[in-house]
Amino acid sequence: MTQFAFSFPEAAKIQQSLHKDLLGGKGAGLAEMTRLGLPVPPGFTLTTAACLAFLEGQKEGQKGQGEFPVGLWDQVLKQLSALERESGKTFGHGSNPLLVSVRSGAKFSMPGMMDTLLNLGLNDQTVQALALESGDARFAWDSYRRFLALYGDVVRGIAKHNFDEIMDTLKRERGVQGDLELTASDLEALVGRFQALYLEHGGEHGGVAFPQDPLEQLAGAIRAVFSSWNTRRAVTYRQINNIPHNLGTAVNVQAMVFGNLGQNSGTGVGFTRDPNTGGSELFGEFMFQAQGEDVVAGIRTPEPLEALQHRLPAVHRQLVQTVRLLERHYFDMQDFEFTVEKGQLFVLQTRSGKRTSQAAVKVAVDLALEGLITRAEAVMRVPPAALEQVLHPRLQSHHGAKLLTKGLPASPGAVSGAVVFSADVALERSKFQKVLLVTSETSPEDIHGMHASVGILTARGGMTSHAAVVARGMGRPAVVGAESLKVNAAAGWLEVGGIRILQGETLTLDGASGQVFLGNVPTEPSQAGPELETLLAWADTHRRLKVRANADTPEDAIRARAFGAEGIGLCRTEHMFFGDERLPWVRQMILAENELEEKHALERLLEMQQADFYGILQAMDGLPVTIRLLDPPLHEFLPALEGLAVEVAQLELKKQDHHESKNLLARVRQLHEHNPMMGLRGVRLLLTRPAILEMQVRAIAQAACQLKLEGQNPQPEIMIPLVGLTEELKQARDLVKNTLEQVSLEQNTPLNIPIGTMIEVPRACLIAGELAQHADFFSFGTNDLTQMTLGFSRDDAQGKFLGQYLEGGILEKDPFATLDTVGVGRLLELAVQEGVRSRGTLKLGICGEHGGDPASIAYFHRVGLEYVSCSPYRVPVARLSAARAVLEPRLIPNP
Amino acid sequence: MTQFAFSFPEAAKIQQSLHKDLLGGKGAGLAEMTRLGLPVPPGFTLTTAACLAFLEGQKEGQKGQGEFPVGLWDQVLKQLSALERESGKTFGHGSNPLLVSVRSGAKFSMPGMMDTLLNLGLNDQTVQALALESGDARFAWDSYRRFLALYGDVVRGIAKHNFDEIMDTLKRERGVQGDLELTASDLEALVGRFQALYLEHGGEHGGVAFPQDPLEQLAGAIRAVFSSWNTRRAVTYRQINNIPHNLGTAVNVQAMVFGNLGQNSGTGVGFTRDPNTGGSELFGEFMFQAQGEDVVAGIRTPEPLEALQHRLPAVHRQLVQTVRLLERHYFDMQDFEFTVEKGQLFVLQTRSGKRTSQAAVKVAVDLALEGLITRAEAVMRVPPAALEQVLHPRLQSHHGAKLLTKGLPASPGAVSGAVVFSADVALERSKFQKVLLVTSETSPEDIHGMHASVGILTARGGMTSHAAVVARGMGRPAVVGAESLKVNAAAGWLEVGGIRILQGETLTLDGASGQVFLGNVPTEPSQAGPELETLLAWADTHRRLKVRANADTPEDAIRARAFGAEGIGLCRTEHMFFGDERLPWVRQMILAENELEEKHALERLLEMQQADFYGILQAMDGLPVTIRLLDPPLHEFLPALEGLAVEVAQLELKKQDHHESKNLLARVRQLHEHNPMMGLRGVRLLLTRPAILEMQVRAIAQAACQLKLEGQNPQPEIMIPLVGLTEELKQARDLVKNTLEQVSLEQNTPLNIPIGTMIEVPRACLIAGELAQHADFFSFGTNDLTQMTLGFSRDDAQGKFLGQYLEGGILEKDPFATLDTVGVGRLLELAVQEGVRSRGTLKLGICGEHGGDPASIAYFHRVGLEYVSCSPYRVPVARLSAARAVLEPRLIPNP
Repeated sequence: MTQFAFSFPEAAKIQQSLHKDLLGGKGAGLAEMTRLGLPVPPGFTLTTAACLAFLEGQKEGQKGQGEFPVGLWDQVLKQLSALERESGKTFGHGSNPLLVSVRSGAKFSMPGMMDTLLNLGLNDQTVQALALESGDARFAWDSYRRFLALYGDVVRGIAKHNFDEIMDTLKRERGVQGDLELTASDLEALVGRFQALYLEHGGEHGGVAFPQDPLEQLAGAIRAVFSSWNTRRAVTYRQINNIPHNLGTAVNVQAMVFGNLGQNSGTGVGFTRDPNTGGSELFGEFMFQAQGEDVVAGIRTPEPLEALQHRLPAVHRQLVQTVRLLERHYFDMQDFEFTVEKGQLFVLQTRSGKRTSQAAVKVAVDLALEGLITRAEAVMRVPPAALEQVLHPRLQSHHGAKLLTKGLPASPGAVSGAVVFSADVALERSKFQKVLLVTSETSPEDIHGMHASVGILTARGGMTSHAAVVARGMGRPAVVGAESLKVNAAAGWLEVGGIRILQGETLTLDGASGQVFLGNVPTEPSQAGPELETLLAWADTHRRLKVRANADTPEDAIRARAFGAEGIGLCRTEHMFFGDERLPWVRQMILAENELEEKHALERLLEMQQADFYGILQAMDGLPVTIRLLDPPLHEFLPALEGLAVEVAQLELKKQDHHESKNLLARVRQLHEHNPMMGLRGVRLLLTRPAILEMQVRAIAQAACQLKLEGQNPQPEIMIPLVGLTEELKQARDLVKNTLEQVSLEQNTPLNIPIGTMIEVPRACLIAGELAQHADFFSFGTNDLTQMTLGFSRDDAQGKFLGQYLEGGILEKDPFATLDTVGVGRLLELAVQEGVRSRGTLKLGICGEHGGDPASIAYFHRVGLEYVSCSPYRVPVARLSAARAVLEPRLIPNP
Repeated sequence: MTQFAFSFPEAAKIQQSLHKDLLGGKGAGLAEMTRLGLPVPPGFTLTTAACLAFLEGQKEGQKGQGEFPVGLWDQVLKQLSALERESGKTFGHGSNPLLVSVRSGAKFSMPGMMDTLLNLGLNDQTVQALALESGDARFAWDSYRRFLALYGDVVRGIAKHNFDEIMDTLKRERGVQGDLELTASDLEALVGRFQALYLEHGGEHGGVAFPQDPLEQLAGAIRAVFSSWNTRRAVTYRQINNIPHNLGTAVNVQAMVFGNLGQNSGTGVGFTRDPNTGGSELFGEFMFQAQGEDVVAGIRTPEPLEALQHRLPAVHRQLVQTVRLLERHYFDMQDFEFTVEKGQLFVLQTRSGKRTSQAAVKVAVDLALEGLITRAEAVMRVPPAALEQVLHPRLQSHHGAKLLTKGLPASPGAVSGAVVFSADVALERSKFQKVLLVTSETSPEDIHGMHASVGILTARGGMTSHAAVVARGMGRPAVVGAESLKVNAAAGWLEVGGIRILQGETLTLDGASGQVFLGNVPTEPSQAGPELETLLAWADTHRRLKVRANADTPEDAIRARAFGAEGIGLCRTEHMFFGDERLPWVRQMILAENELEEKHALERLLEMQQADFYGILQAMDGLPVTIRLLDPPLHEFLPALEGLAVEVAQLELKKQDHHESKNLLARVRQLHEHNPMMGLRGVRLLLTRPAILEMQVRAIAQAACQLKLEGQNPQPEIMIPLVGLTEELKQARDLVKNTLEQVSLEQNTPLNIPIGTMIEVPRACLIAGELAQHADFFSFGTNDLTQMTLGFSRDDAQGKFLGQYLEGGILEKDPFATLDTVGVGRLLELAVQEGVRSRGTLKLGICGEHGGDPASIAYFHRVGLEYVSCSPYRVPVARLSAARAVLEPRLIPNP
């Protein structure tokens, strides 16, 4: 005979590894707490196997609907007798009646999805006994009417609103507003009416009376809880959360305890540490003379736990000891529920507590320092994504700043930028300045613009509006629903509080507070506590992957270094080409009609670039800085074709001079490409216009020489982008080498600068063995590699079909956020294997967006890259992820 | 002692496989002809080994500059004695002096690259003897002065113009115009002056006298020929033609024979068959009383070979026998040179004759029918590219057509199209009509437009102008240098003969004749002779690859079938969407603001598409027709963004109504993509707008049902483009299946239509095993696969950097013309292997441009595809190439 019912102490003896499977999460917890000798109300658990057998029987219809599997009911009766003995109470009769709760408890938590019954065992007799025993007739009748309503709903399928309506009628009759104004006798009357409802229910054929027999109550409750595994909402929840459907739920039958039996009773919830800050003090609330549901109903404001300490110091002491024990037992901060019945403490539930990102870091570090967990475990306790939140910049001080408006704090972080009013303009302008996208509301078609912006501000929408959800997903600070904003996108302005702000003006928004300021309010990195440093230092001892940053300016480089970057993996030189001083020279270089003009422009750019590189190499002194030579197509530096064509047409119509614009238009049209992403850029551009390459290499080499002469240790590495053909790399490498040698001779300074290539064209992966013969390093440009391997234009896909693909399950994850290991990864692994086989000393890194994505970092670790490179703010995320990638296969994380 | 010198009969005994290596091409031919007993003037060959030893000595400088390797000179003297004995003449003295030619002859022909000397052995005495012996003093002195000039140039380095100037001075003194007016004594005087030049040459230190000793002449000549292996022009030629530099040249010393010794002498060249038509009659020219160089100099017009037949019938008979023997010996049509000296025939040279494409076909077939070669060999004799020329369409008749002008016939084929005046307009317009690009001249920036045009017409440039070269390369008919054209591209017209023709008007050009006609003159496929059918039938017996055509209209399908296509491998449905009747409906479908509008447009398109498919399936009755569902991005069907924006701005300024244009502009802007090639197209579009897919599938299914009811056997296959994700294919396939089942039910007609996918996104190759689970066939779209694997936008690359890459050796071949087997091929092979492993019955084909490229076809054969698909005109090319792919590894082609 299968044992389906286990008392908590019996359950604790089941093989540990089966606890959750058989007993469910809640049952396992109760068994464990009982085993630890904690004050848990006694009870027993019906296993998930019982549930499955019951459901199987239902399905087969071999037995009558709702028949229990053979032996189950006998076991329940036996456990019930034991429970009566242990509690000294009697079930369904007697002066001290036993009441029980009947709760579901599956292997994986499914909060609110399945049914629960409280106060089972109440009937017309026991309610009287309860009134006597508690000395509170109102409490007894109130419990009974609650039980009747719940039982009716859960077991009999009499919808809750039927009971509510009866209650409302009674309140009208009595002329009262709230439930609390109803007296004991009112509630007694209510019980009568509820029982009448049972009989009426079922229409003309009549209903069935409420079962006075508590055993019948119990059998009905167990059946209902078992069956609730297959309710529609439970099935849907499992689908969404990827929980298998064949697990079943356990049922926990437990003696009720009451927090409302007099002044020395009460109920509380708490955390073993502060879930907001991670501080080590107990944190919780207590309500005297109340049951859990009273707290939920908000009849009074709960008091802090200190109140318990004052009034029942012994109980408080016992509580502290108990929950500390729980924390030591579960090796984690606990979220617990407890009740005090007549001065006696009962712990009802405990589980790992939810916490803020900041608390997660502190708790993990503190637990390790307290010796409860290892440092490696601490590293595994903090989800890497949490760090991004911790590190978001915040306003330094907004003293004196003009507050324009306040909206909903939709996505944390403070940021300043030039306002733009459309996604397209955002994308366009973002090439040379930081932009804030301001719209009435956003739609999926704006995604490219949201991505291009540093922050988002909308006049409409709530915390779950498109703008809010997407901004949080992208990690962009956002304020939404700032209703005092009036946005006129077509005309290019917004008005707020009588102030009109035009496109291009600067605003600052604080996504943590919802505030929007005029102008540029300084921000600072969030002051993460010292525990973060500690945690990252521990992480660093485990990780094998090095972490570099993508940084284009000395400021970025300094920030990255502060975050622990071990070098720069991608320094994009083209970003230096935008900016008001430089663009004219860049344009002259592009449009040069003869070598002299080109040379003149390049000479000016050389000075500027040399200063840039000097600053970055200085900031990263002693650490490698991988500088990518010019990558984008040249037309990106020129005005957009469409706008220019319109301008020329307008000038022409107005009979104004348009000679210059027309010439420019001709040149822009000449440089225009149908698919610039796959056009004249990267190494193709460098080989077509080698003077640009030579200028850039010279700037790097001269900056390095200058620093060396000053006694510093610059470590530049030169990276050639978009290589797909061996000969491209050979020729470009030769050009780089020649310039380096020239500068080295001129400056009489030895230069030993590695030359490598970005691997971002699929073909490069396919000929990696050959390419490795001509490269000191490979850096995977996974953005472009993803674009070309999937044939997804990133800018276009975001707004056009990617959303639908993700919704429709065609794609599981955005391949631009988390690496497509199946497709792109296969190419990458091929390149790693064949590259290293060809050149044993080849250095391998990755500098696409994926370098800051935890899941992708774990993958890069597995395939054996040497480093990842990501944006400065994600460096801590990457350090932690890289450590977890090492630890994950080794540790079985705590449940 | 190494044997360096071999008489022709001795040489013939050397192991056959070493002939060309040791004796060079010419020496091997002479040895072979001697062995066959043909009348070849006697002589001997100095091997390439001798040359290499000589050059090595020169390099090492161990011996004096120009010293012969040990033993060589003794061997020369011995061979010379034998030659004297055999010819009955004496070298350098006597009444019957032996004169010899000294010619280079490397393993691979390097025409005109190295030096040759004739009439060596003449000196102040032998010239007298030659005059007596020939009875023609003028001939003797003329030969002597020629030898002096040539020897001076080749051996002594006295530039040719020095001799020419002396000759010009003499002519002025004698008051004559042409060389032929100079008398024997004039020429004798010239000899004196030439010898004086030898002495003067070398400046103040004086020169060295012309060597009277013929042995010294011979030694100098041999040294000069050996050394000419390393002249700059020879080295360059070898680089261009991929000939190794370490082969050296042989030297052939051969007794001179003279075609100018009286009336029964003469010289001729000929082909064993007509090199233009392939006709089997002997074809050649003969000049009495002349030497080869007289023919070259054009002193008289040569006569046809019949003249020889009339005047020296025995010699003619011997010639016919001799060359027939040569043809049978070499199994190929020969190009031969011969001389008749006093009625005696000497064959000087024979080699495989160059021929037109048409002749190549006929000769190969005739040789096989005559039993000289096998049918397989005949297939290997015709280069596939030749067929394209044979098959180019030509004018049916231009009777009554208005001839506008005539230019140079730069690239064969006749074609009609709408004139456009810029490459960009050509590309734009080519989407919906056939265009002729008309410009003053073309430049590399126009390549995309040339490619998009069906023909090219320029006002300037010659047969090797950019336009001519590129058009021939692309197989586009072209007329260049039509100087009477006046093109005003900016204004959009051309003028010729007083007629002004605007953009969009139709012209017809005939690239074979250079004629340009007004309007549309009907063309017909070139009438290739019956031998082509025979050859292709033979090819068909060998090939394993099937050949299908890419065809979008019933007309194309009929043409393709006539050329032997075994189905359609790619029917592009979008091409049916352009055209004046349809575009409005297509636009309504795209711009539809609600389902009703969309439905209405789709219903109209359904009718049209059904009629299209009916026609194509009917034309291909019984053969498979692979129909690709809509592929391009929708904005291709809308007006271009730039033009529309200009239009709206203009209307706005003019204060005209621009509401509609503005709305259209907004929609066009919305659909606009940064990189449309990687944007919302193919399966992405079909899944986003499934109504389009359903309409197309319904049109196919209904057309198939209609034909079935009419008793025909339609074989459509449905192809889903641009798939990169398994789920894309699954979902699209389900949509297709559902529609097919619906139509099948509605029409009560069983439909069994295979559903497959194009493999054109790199990722598709990487997950081919998975995709094969959901595809009945794969068709490799190598155009897009090449674009994405290399990251080359085809439209952009052509004009922007591809040319430079090919010139600079960064790319060996245009990867859009010949498949990049290293990169793209690696992906393709992966897909083939894993696709077939996953689904054994998977059908594999290729439908990119590469399907018509001979080299690529050989590759597709090797990797095991089932069929290639190419444009109709290339079907014969593909049939032949597919057979050669089978035969090539088996046959060692004749030398």
